[in-house]
This record gives sequence, C-alpha cells and structure tokens, in this order.
Amino acid sequence: MAGGIGSRFWPESTAEKPKQFLDLLGNGTSFIQQTFNRLNRLIPTGQIYILTNERYRNLIKEQLPQIKDYQIIAEPVMRNTAPAILYAAKKIHQINPEAAMLVAPSDHYIAQEEQFAANVQTAFDEASRHDKLMTLGIVPNSPNTGYGYIQYDKNDSNPVKKVLQFTEKPDLPTAQQFLSQGNYLWNAGIFVWSTRSILKAFEQFLPEMYQKMSNGDSAYNTEKEKEFIEKTFPQLENISIDYGILEKARNVYVLPATFVWNDLGAWNALYEQLKTNDNENVIINSRLLADNSWGNLIKTEHKNVVLKDLNNYAVIDSEQTLMIIPRKDDQKVKEYAQKFHKKQ
Amino acid sequence: MAGGIGSRFWPESTAEKPKQFLDLLGNGTSFIQQTFNRLNRLIPTGQIYILTNERYRNLIKEQLPQIKDYQIIAEPVMRNTAPAILYAAKKIHQINPEAAMLVAPSDHYIAQEEQFAANVQTAFDEASRHDKLMTLGIVPNSPNTGYGYIQYDKNDSNPVKKVLQFTEKPDLPTAQQFLSQGNYLWNAGIFVWSTRSILKAFEQFLPEMYQKMSNGDSAYNTEKEKEFIEKTFPQLENISIDYGILEKARNVYVLPATFVWNDLGAWNALYEQLKTNDNENVIINSRLLADNSWGNLIKTEHKNVVLKDLNNYAVIDSEQTLMIIPRKDDQKVKEYAQKFHKKQ
Repeated sequence: MAGGIGSRFWPESTAEKPKQFLDLLGNGTSFIQQTFNRLNRLIPTGQIYILTNERYRNLIKEQLPQIKDYQIIAEPVMRNTAPAILYAAKKIHQINPEAAMLVAPSDHYIAQEEQFAANVQTAFDEASRHDKLMTLGIVPNSPNTGYGYIQYDKNDSNPVKKVLQFTEKPDLPTAQQFLSQGNYLWNAGIFVWSTRSILKAFEQFLPEMYQKMSNGDSAYNTEKEKEFIEKTFPQLENISIDYGILEKARNVYVLPATFVWNDLGAWNALYEQLKTNDNENVIINSRLLADNSWGNLIKTEHKNVVLKDLNNYAVIDSEQTLMIIPRKDDQKVKEYAQKFHKKQ
Repeated sequence: MAGGIGSRFWPESTAEKPKQFLDLLGNGTSFIQQTFNRLNRLIPTGQIYILTNERYRNLIKEQLPQIKDYQIIAEPVMRNTAPAILYAAKKIHQINPEAAMLVAPSDHYIAQEEQFAANVQTAFDEASRHDKLMTLGIVPNSPNTGYGYIQYDKNDSNPVKKVLQFTEKPDLPTAQQFLSQGNYLWNAGIFVWSTRSILKAFEQFLPEMYQKMSNGDSAYNTEKEKEFIEKTFPQLENISIDYGILEKARNVYVLPATFVWNDLGAWNALYEQLKTNDNENVIINSRLLADNSWGNLIKTEHKNVVLKDLNNYAVIDSEQTLMIIPRKDDQKVKEYAQKFHKKQ
C-alpha cells in the first residue's frame, strides 16, 4: 500500500513525493524500496503488487524498476484501505483462486528482517489451511499512545491467536494497563489471508462494495479493467479495512510478531527509533560538529552542520525548506506546511 | 583593497571566496561590487585599481567585468597594507605625479552614499592642496570595543582635523570615556592623500621598503613590472600602513565622516547593522515562518525557513554547511571552520 500523501514529515515529504518514496533513514533506499526488498525475500518479484494512486506511477517505476506495469494497481481516486484491498484481492483471486495474500504499508520501519520473514511464513501457512483473517501484531515495548492495540485471547495456545477486540489510540493509563495484561499487541496494519477468505468477508460485511466490484469480474486483468475501475471506484464507500471488516468478522486472528517495528508517524518517532542513548544526536546524511548540543535529530542533504547550545531540536534541511523546531513539537509541521502553501 | 582571506563569515566566506566577494546583505551585489559602484560615482572606471592577491584575479574579473587587467594590482604574496599601498602609489604616481589617491577596504558596509561622496570630495580637495595624510574617521554612535579610535585636536577648527593619536581596540570604560570626550572617531581604514605625500612618508618612515620598491621605477606599468614585483615583493616587511606610517607621521589628519559605516567583522555585526528593532529577526535571502522565535539572523540560499522557540541565534545555511549558533558566539566560527577543515 503506497497511496498515502502524508505530510507529517514535511518539509521532506510533500504530496508530490510522500514519505514512502523518501530515504528518511539516510541509508540510500526509500521506504517503499526497503518494503519491496523485505517482501521480495519471500514473494517472487512478479507477485508483488503496489496499491497506489495514479499520480505516483512514475515515482514507483523510477524507484522499483523491476516492477512491471501490471503490478501497479492505481486507484483513480483516494478511497481508504477497504476498496483498495478489495480491488487487489479481486485481481489476485482471478489469477489464482488458491492465493494467499499479504497486505503491508510501504512506509514503516522494520528491523530484524529474518524474524519478519519467519512471522510472515507462519501466517502464510496458516492462511493456506484455514479461513482466518490474520494481522501481525507487534509485542509492545512501551505504552505508546499513538498506536492502535489488538487484544487476543489469553487462553489460545496456538501461535496465531484469536482476536478479542481492537482499540484505537488509548490514553496513557489504558495503554499501561494493556501492557501489564500481556495480551495486547500493536496494530501494525500488516494483514495475511487467503483471497478466498477476504472476499468472503467483503461479501458479508461490505456487501454493496463487494457487489459493485464483482460486476467487473470479467474485466480484471484485461484491457477492460481500467474503464471499469474508473467508473466504479469513485462510487465505493470510503472506509478502512479495520473498521469495515476486521472489527466485525469473527475469524480474525493475530500473530504476535517478534521483529522491531515503528510506523514512524512523525519526525520525533524517527529520532526515538534511531537514537542509541538519550543524549545523542541522530545524524542523517550529515557531518555534525556539536558544541554543547545533544538530543537533536539532524537531517540534511549531505551538509556539514555546526550546532552550538541546541538541545532536543529537529533540524531538517531539505532542498527548499530549512526547519528548526523542538522535537516534541513535531505535530506542528502540518500547520507550517499549510502556512507556506498558502503564501505561495 | 581586496586581498583579505577572512574566515569570520564562515561558512559563507572561505579562502576560495572571502567576504569581499560575497553578497552577505542579500541585495544581489557583493561588497566589492558595492565598493566599486560607490567609488565609481566620484572616480572614473579606468582610475580604480584593485589591490588583491593573484588567486582572486578571476573572481574580480567575473564580478567587475568593467575592470581591465591593468587595474588589478596583484601581490604575489600577502604582505599587509603598507607594501600593497606603496606598490599602488608607485604605479599611480608614475602615471600622474599630481594624483590624489583614495585607499579603501572592499568589504565594509556603508550607507548614505551621498554623504560618503561629499566627505571624499572634501578630502580629495585637501589632498591636492596640502601635504596631508588623511583618514576618514567615523563619528561613533556607541562605545564599540571592536574598532580602533582616532583622537583629533579639539582646537582645530578646520573641517579636516589634526590627529593626536591612534588607539587600538580599547576596553569598554576607555571607549566610553572616548565618546564623552567628543574628539574620538572610529578608524575606518579609508585614507586619502596625494601620491607625492604618501611616497615622501614611505621614504621617511619605511626607507628600506621605499628603496627596494624604487628600484623598479623604470619597470612600473611596463612589461617588466611583473618580474620585478615577483622578485621584490616577498622581500618587503610585513607591516600595516597604520603602524608603519600613520602612527609616526606628523602630517596626519582626519575628516569626521557623516555616513553610516560598519566593518562587519563577524555575523553578529551583520545582525546589529540590519536589525530594525531588538526583537526582530533579520532575514537574508529567505522566507521565514517564525513561531515564538526572535532576534535571529537568518541567511539561506533562498529557502523557506521554519523556526520554533529559537531566539538570538545565527542560522546560516550555505551550499555545503548549515550553522546554528547563538549570535553572541560568532567569534567561534573560525574554530569551527578549522575543525571541519581538519576532518576533510
């Protein structure tokens, strides 16, 4: 899934080039490239599809030259995750009705890829054998209030556990209680199921959407697909897969995942993920001379940086914009982006 | 005089492109261009000479295309102001033994150019009629401890006043006393005299230097000049005109000047000169969004800048280096420049 237009990493991310196409970690690859490579260890190149918006087609072809046009599933309009996943499931199911399918965001941070691969393989195996809608849930290491939580059945001794309920971003006492209970996981938005199972769930819980998209069954993966989608997609309900399906279905399961994961929601999350101790500066694509300066996130386009008497700031120097703000205020960047946009 | 290699405006100024060639004010012209234009209102283009170092010849021709090669007086080695001025005086005197000569730094800030022109004209007139070594002294508006001071004879009622003594950078109580006495001026390093007068002074106070340079009297402004200078210049004493001549001569005079002047010794001086009130940010080549941020000096290469909770800093974003330091610490930039230099 690579259709987001998030601006929480402004000034680096813009609607023209949102987060999934950026190398925010400074390791030479964008998030979508990292995601592709991670999945490509398990899934053949030709079976990886990019769900995105038409406007990002060229960026994707540039960053993933190994991808063929048929693998880019471009929504004509933005319609949240449920319609996009249904569209992909329809196409894949038409090619292989026995297919298992993994859905993953393209702009998250994941480390320990061996663990990731093992977790995904477990889920794939389960999806092939059972009618289960599975999510990968991250074992939490802090009562983070920015994530959704998944509660599973403590008494389920299988590796893939029955989900009891989803909870959106909780307050801190609630999150602390979740952690102490031990059967709560972070919702990473990574799903595994057979196309058969997810299509059945759409038919049951989003029947109107399912019916509209089934009218194109003879068009998928043919030259008629584009016309059908352009006509049909804008009519679909704007609803997330979580709200439309997962919170309603009875066959939802979660695999407690053991890899390091961070959705990197904003600049400070990047600092927190990359820091090695509390005092240190996190330095991306820069050479730093720090004089009485610590706790800063510094990202430039390969510049020397001199800081004196600056602590806990984000210093982001992009091609058009230089931003210097306290890290804790990273939620304000949307506002700043809008203000500059209005001025232009 | 455009031979300086100052690094106090690092990272903007470097030995490759020092301050005189920079547009630090963000008005589209470098200091040397501003200086040339200011003098060109009084002095014909062909009679303006640039005293510089050989390494800056191309930069000068680029920034002052109206200058011909003969007007670039390039020292083969750095030898302070006295040798450079003697060299220029010799060349000019050989062309016109009745010449009056103005010597000015090329990297200072001057406003109220009409006043400047009137002051210079007064000094030129005086130089043509009298054997006087004149400086333009700036009427001080603060007890600045970063400047040299010139004390003149209070009882001299002429517009051009007899100098009693020069004082190098004083401490604050001394500077305050100078201001209260009313007959002290800032030494702006702008000199006016006839070539006859200054050559006579060199003969008297720096006789060895004078003798060595007089050995080339038949070579100046001929094709033999270059060879003579390359052989002779390195032998000359490294001494300033102030120390070598002006502090010793009896015929030194000062014209209290009425234009706005600032030698812009470092980043903070730029802020102080350009600020309109104490709280304001000084913004050069940038578009600023300031959130609870004031008193900053901001210079980029035409970027948007977002600041939150930053006060009294210098934020300098050049092509290779981003520097964020408290304005009051601008004296540390030499140290930072050296540290990066060593790393490279």
